[in-house]
Amino acid sequence: MKFLLMNGPNLNRLGKREPEYYGTATLADLEAELVEEARASGVELYCYQSNHEGSLIDELHRRADEGIDGAILNAGAFTHYSYALRDAIASVTYPVIEVHISNIHARESFREVSVIAPVTKGQIVGLGFDGYHLALSALIKMVKGRN
Amino acid sequence: MKFLLMNGPNLNRLGKREPEYYGTATLADLEAELVEEARASGVELYCYQSNHEGSLIDELHRRADEGIDGAILNAGAFTHYSYALRDAIASVTYPVIEVHISNIHARESFREVSVIAPVTKGQIVGLGFDGYHLALSALIKMVKGRN
Amino acid sequence: MKFLLMNGPNLNRLGKREPEYYGTATLADLEAELVEEARASGVELYCYQSNHEGSLIDELHRRADEGIDGAILNAGAFTHYSYALRDAIASVTYPVIEVHISNIHARESFREVSVIAPVTKGQIVGLGFDGYHLALSALIKMVKGRN
Amino acid sequence: MKFLLMNGPNLNRLGKREPEYYGTATLADLEAELVEEARASGVELYCYQSNHEGSLIDELHRRADEGIDGAILNAGAFTHYSYALRDAIASVTYPVIEVHISNIHARESFREVSVIAPVTKGQIVGLGFDGYHLALSALIKMVKGRN
Amino acid sequence: MKFLLMNGPNLNRLGKREPEYYGTATLADLEAELVEEARASGVELYCYQSNHEGSLIDELHRRADEGIDGAILNAGAFTHYSYALRDAIASVTYPVIEVHISNIHARESFREVSVIAPVTKGQIVGLGFDGYHLALSALIKMVKGRN
Amino acid sequence: MKFLLMNGPNLNRLGKREPEYYGTATLADLEAELVEEARASGVELYCYQSNHEGSLIDELHRRADEGIDGAILNAGAFTHYSYALRDAIASVTYPVIEVHISNIHARESFREVSVIAPVTKGQIVGLGFDGYHLALSALIKMVKGRN
Amino acid sequence: MKFLLMNGPNLNRLGKREPEYYGTATLADLEAELVEEARASGVELYCYQSNHEGSLIDELHRRADEGIDGAILNAGAFTHYSYALRDAIASVTYPVIEVHISNIHARESFREVSVIAPVTKGQIVGLGFDGYHLALSALIKMVKGRN
Amino acid sequence: MKFLLMNGPNLNRLGKREPEYYGTATLADLEAELVEEARASGVELYCYQSNHEGSLIDELHRRADEGIDGAILNAGAFTHYSYALRDAIASVTYPVIEVHISNIHARESFREVSVIAPVTKGQIVGLGFDGYHLALSALIKMVKGRN
Amino acid sequence: MKFLLMNGPNLNRLGKREPEYYGTATLADLEAELVEEARASGVELYCYQSNHEGSLIDELHRRADEGIDGAILNAGAFTHYSYALRDAIASVTYPVIEVHISNIHARESFREVSVIAPVTKGQIVGLGFDGYHLALSALIKMVKGRN
Amino acid sequence: MKFLLMNGPNLNRLGKREPEYYGTATLADLEAELVEEARASGVELYCYQSNHEGSLIDELHRRADEGIDGAILNAGAFTHYSYALRDAIASVTYPVIEVHISNIHARESFREVSVIAPVTKGQIVGLGFDGYHLALSALIKMVKGRN
Amino acid sequence: MKFLLMNGPNLNRLGKREPEYYGTATLADLEAELVEEARASGVELYCYQSNHEGSLIDELHRRADEGIDGAILNAGAFTHYSYALRDAIASVTYPVIEVHISNIHARESFREVSVIAPVTKGQIVGLGFDGYHLALSALIKMVKGRN
Amino acid sequence: MKFLLMNGPNLNRLGKREPEYYGTATLADLEAELVEEARASGVELYCYQSNHEGSLIDELHRRADEGIDGAILNAGAFTHYSYALRDAIASVTYPVIEVHISNIHARESFREVSVIAPVTKGQIVGLGFDGYHLALSALIKMVKGRN
Repeated sequence: MKFLLMNGPNLNRLGKREPEYYGTATLADLEAELVEEARASGVELYCYQSNHEGSLIDELHRRADEGIDGAILNAGAFTHYSYALRDAIASVTYPVIEVHISNIHARESFREVSVIAPVTKGQIVGLGFDGYHLALSALIKMVKGRN
Repeated sequence: MKFLLMNGPNLNRLGKREPEYYGTATLADLEAELVEEARASGVELYCYQSNHEGSLIDELHRRADEGIDGAILNAGAFTHYSYALRDAIASVTYPVIEVHISNIHARESFREVSVIAPVTKGQIVGLGFDGYHLALSALIKMVKGRN
Repeated sequence: MKFLLMNGPNLNRLGKREPEYYGTATLADLEAELVEEARASGVELYCYQSNHEGSLIDELHRRADEGIDGAILNAGAFTHYSYALRDAIASVTYPVIEVHISNIHARESFREVSVIAPVTKGQIVGLGFDGYHLALSALIKMVKGRN
Repeated sequence: MKFLLMNGPNLNRLGKREPEYYGTATLADLEAELVEEARASGVELYCYQSNHEGSLIDELHRRADEGIDGAILNAGAFTHYSYALRDAIASVTYPVIEVHISNIHARESFREVSVIAPVTKGQIVGLGFDGYHLALSALIKMVKGRN
Repeated sequence: MKFLLMNGPNLNRLGKREPEYYGTATLADLEAELVEEARASGVELYCYQSNHEGSLIDELHRRADEGIDGAILNAGAFTHYSYALRDAIASVTYPVIEVHISNIHARESFREVSVIAPVTKGQIVGLGFDGYHLALSALIKMVKGRN
Repeated sequence: MKFLLMNGPNLNRLGKREPEYYGTATLADLEAELVEEARASGVELYCYQSNHEGSLIDELHRRADEGIDGAILNAGAFTHYSYALRDAIASVTYPVIEVHISNIHARESFREVSVIAPVTKGQIVGLGFDGYHLALSALIKMVKGRN
Repeated sequence: MKFLLMNGPNLNRLGKREPEYYGTATLADLEAELVEEARASGVELYCYQSNHEGSLIDELHRRADEGIDGAILNAGAFTHYSYALRDAIASVTYPVIEVHISNIHARESFREVSVIAPVTKGQIVGLGFDGYHLALSALIKMVKGRN
Repeated sequence: MKFLLMNGPNLNRLGKREPEYYGTATLADLEAELVEEARASGVELYCYQSNHEGSLIDELHRRADEGIDGAILNAGAFTHYSYALRDAIASVTYPVIEVHISNIHARESFREVSVIAPVTKGQIVGLGFDGYHLALSALIKMVKGRN
Repeated sequence: MKFLLMNGPNLNRLGKREPEYYGTATLADLEAELVEEARASGVELYCYQSNHEGSLIDELHRRADEGIDGAILNAGAFTHYSYALRDAIASVTYPVIEVHISNIHARESFREVSVIAPVTKGQIVGLGFDGYHLALSALIKMVKGRN
Repeated sequence: MKFLLMNGPNLNRLGKREPEYYGTATLADLEAELVEEARASGVELYCYQSNHEGSLIDELHRRADEGIDGAILNAGAFTHYSYALRDAIASVTYPVIEVHISNIHARESFREVSVIAPVTKGQIVGLGFDGYHLALSALIKMVKGRN
Repeated sequence: MKFLLMNGPNLNRLGKREPEYYGTATLADLEAELVEEARASGVELYCYQSNHEGSLIDELHRRADEGIDGAILNAGAFTHYSYALRDAIASVTYPVIEVHISNIHARESFREVSVIAPVTKGQIVGLGFDGYHLALSALIKMVKGRN
Repeated sequence: MKFLLMNGPNLNRLGKREPEYYGTATLADLEAELVEEARASGVELYCYQSNHEGSLIDELHRRADEGIDGAILNAGAFTHYSYALRDAIASVTYPVIEVHISNIHARESFREVSVIAPVTKGQIVGLGFDGYHLALSALIKMVKGRN
């Protein structure tokens, strides 16, 4: 199995940015942990982060062409307005699980709406870095369940 | 550790109701699985379901007085309008994780808003019964992390 | 054939409450008339009233398990916000006809929206107690038409 | 007693148009049935259909001058925006019952609002052709009750 | 000078309809008074009433082709939604004064918006039949002021 | 008969301000004309202008205590938000006619709503200074009609 | 005189819940104080609290049948959505005064609207426990004023 | 092949009305050009214009009964509110292409919404008279593609 | 202790204005009663009324500089739009209790929102003149509680 | 003549993505056809696709500097929120025609609004790949008409 | 050159009011600094503050009659609703720069809208007292640039 | 001191684009002037422009890592929807001043809202190129004030 872990804008600043919402560990820390955990389940996990909406879309397409089995996506602020990203998710056939580190429903009102949620498989919100681990575990079960 | 698993209105109909959204397993099946899984981690899991908003509130209060460590809550349709349930969650000090079996963002528009989300710890949405398992696992990690 | 006649909050006050909208006959009067009329058509009519949203849901479920053929429902003010009741109606397979005694479109603006209407078979509004008689007659024709 | 049965735009296409909502019987079939049924109760039923808002208004006025006792009105799509029709109904003194064949609350959102409902006596919605029969029966009872 | 006096839907019912808003004099009474008054100022006044939106538009066009100098228009309920009438007014070059007999701002909320107001010269509202007389007087002064 | 002519904020700038909307004559010119015209009909006309909301209210009260017969009011921009002025109008018993020089429905959207209109007798809008003359004429007729 | 003191959802948690809004005294403390104070004025005060909307409605009905003289109601979060409770209040003839301990206008936006306020006599908001005392005093004066 | 070219309210004024939006050629000019062009492709083109909503609906129905292959429709201002026209289009089985001469998205805000667009095949907007030619060409290709 | 009793626009008309909402006693009557009652508790009560928003603000500032202990404010219609008054209240440190004589939630919709409520201590609404007495009593208790 | 054919996000997936909306031909197929067709009319057509909003803007600028004569733009999902793209279109002087393959008015509600439409020349919507051919033909006629 | 420095409601409380937004320096301090700075550039600066909307309007008019060259305006809370002040600004011909001490976009939502911004030259927001200095500097440059 | 001057989409077109809003000087002209002016105050000013949202975010991050002291940002149309840019600003610790050349409050309605304003220090709007000079001057004073 091959999965994509994709993080969107400003998530490269994890550990530097608004620690009251996001904690102090870095994105590299998170990616390393997840790659390790994936490997233990026989999953190859590709990690990708970009602040560019277009690059995230390109990556989703490229991985679709390569034939991956699923993706974990924290789209950062694109969550709230990027209909282009939404269309990209809708255009691929592998399942995508949406993750948010903080509880977006307890913050500014613009964060309450996710324009990508309707085309994802589901959402894990507010559970910190653990949300990514849960998403990985869910994705593995989901893909195995299909085979 | 003691946790509460609480299911709201119409979830007693799991397996009978709208299988395209909820699958065919029953609530009893789900509860049995989760109690077993909790026990394996040394957690006692209390299961409660009611179609009565007041009974759900009473139960949240009662468990607070008994001193539980966390709760998993699928509030069913109360999610979308029960400010009384929201206040009940806000009035207890143990963490509550919100679960929805189906992807509520891909259904009727009234399901897009959760009035309880701002006072829960986080949400797991759209991942079927697995969402409960993930919530249990997250809650265990969260409570252990505190101790 | 077995039908359920279900009345929601404050309809136990019929005859005592706001007679300019609801007239002076009581709920018992209405139920007696309808049971009689149903019997004349070979229909057993179960009458149920509650001010408790949860009890209405429980009753809808219980009758579904017993295998009734249809229901007449005046949900009172729950009409305007009880998504839990809506889900209960959606979870049963027998047809439900919505009745309102007064013309809710000629009263306060919050009464203009029925959150249960989309999952009922139809609505009869503003025709006084006669609305229940018409609903009974429609339900009989509808169920017979299916057999 | 004399009643008016009035059908608005596109209802002349009954049986040809969107059968999933309206069935396959024609307007002529419906009118014949209703005239027959009315006659059995000693009621003369005038049938009128037009796609012209102005013609419907003219007819409502003309029948008011002739002195009819009530009307059954399916205003079709005019239901949702014709304030002129609303004023016409408000300007006559005989009771008007609003009928819709399909459950307009389970269709496009623009069909949820009826601008004429506040000035009609009541509404019968979603019960197919039977809605007209119920309206006729209700009107007879209503007018007799007054005399 | 030639002017058009145009009345829209249901105004043919003046004197019969909702006397609390419109009084008891008829449209014929009003037209006779105004024709007389216009004649005294050397103005020929064409009177036209219809319940048909299309006929009102046709008449506005026809009078434009004949070359009239101004119009007084009470568009009745078309005031609130007939963008087609609005376009017709915008398509003619003679000034149009909008009249309403009752104070539409003290009635139902849908009457608060006039979709034709932005393309008329002005509005006279709530002054009863006198509003027409004032409009006639204003139109005469306006057209004379231009010459 | 005694009437009040009251002009609100910035109308002291008539003739200096936005001539495309208001023309070049001054408020003094207008008042002189109207006083003269009133006198010809045996009406004493008190003229008052202020940029102070409170002063306009004081004046309405003071004239009520003196016992005037009616008022012509151009409330300027207070039209769109001064609920205090609205209450003042509602608190006096003489009729008030609202006047606007320009067609407020063809300008910025905030000018479309008049919060005072529901408590005035009627409105004359967009007819330039002539609007005041028409209002005077209407007021005379109205008051005479009562006596 | 007999009054009802009714408290809604989560008010049984007074003293345990969000002390920054509600202080540390318990509901029992409050009830004891008020019963005492009522007695001093010759008033029998019935105390009732429930987290169940239906139970609150039942109690309002029951007390209406017994013939009480007034009620003090803190409906908790039901204030913001329970149209059923509103109908219950409207269906009884004794005066009801609405109380809120905290200033609901300085909190979350959903607390700004009270759906029951239009059918109560008045509201006392934000004055802590003292609000209940004031309500009691107002109710006594009000009922005495009637006799 | 037989097509219908249908123009709605005020389009009979083409060449006379608001030339900044619509140019100076007349409707007759346009129809002549299009009939000619259609004939060159072996298509018979019926031209119809009316200011009457009902007449447009009647015509759509009549042509459906005759069995035409497609229609080009510029509904003028009916575009923005005529749900009756929308239902008429939905009730016929031949494809309808919506045309607007001017760019309705660069004009008044009420022109931004087309209530008929969801039931048409597509829209051609803002390209002047050429829009009709393009629609004709598209319709021919579309119908031929089906055969 | 020194308190300010401040009444806003049109409250000088108490007893003359809309008696169905406000009764027939005058402001002078009310002030005399309250001064007397305050004196009995050792409180000096300054009474101030103005129809001028700016004067109310000036007075609030002036009393702040003098060092008063609290204020009772019925801001009349300014309640619904005067953000300047709101800022004035926020700028002083003594507690302000908002009073409304009538139940503003049972009247026109614009009266439902108070822009000053979030910066006051609390509100007493709909209890007639008694509301002022209750506010005085509450203020005394509040200020004493602090000392 | 030189034109630009520009396609936005996810249109590189044509033929792979949601065939029910977009068919099975690829973007390369479409571009080849259009280049060929353009050449036949003596037009050089530059083809450009990107998932990057910034790259589309850069390209529009670059072609403006080179001096092209027009552009055909399918902005994909950027249509619905990219005000930056809108400004880019407004900043160039050559005409831009907006194309959408599917009927965006018959899909999700967010697709109903085009933020770029007001600054384009016009729109061709819902006519499949043929929309591009029509746009090319319209652009040629438009540019020739200017020369 | 002569400029006006105008401050609106509650700005006389600078230094006393909400220091977290406005700091501790007084209005007199600010005015003294700015008069001095203006004098150094050969500008006479008139300082004016009032809590009265009408007085601010009067002053703007008076200075227009005297012939000043520009104004700096902090309208305080009037910014958010005083359309009368807006009209006053629109009625004078000298440039007006709007200043706000705090970042109004980071505070309560009602402060987000400025009804005067569209008729001012520009805004300087959130830069503390320095905003006034910048405005003075900008105004000098602007007026000099014109000469 | 080191500052960043950042310009967003389409600002590279300054001097070429919509001169009625933006004048005829180029971005290079502006940058040269500002670099010079900064140098005179001992400030190194880095200039950056991009049409790519992601590149703007990358640059803000990169400069944060390098340790700059402040930034001047004209985000162009991204101002109105780029929550990703907003998060980037919130993630850096140096102050950012928002600049707009034209008065965005006097243009299209979508330009009225700035989604980045709440996380910037302040805004300078509508003062042309001078706005950048003022921002530079404010930033210098602000940073010096801290040291």
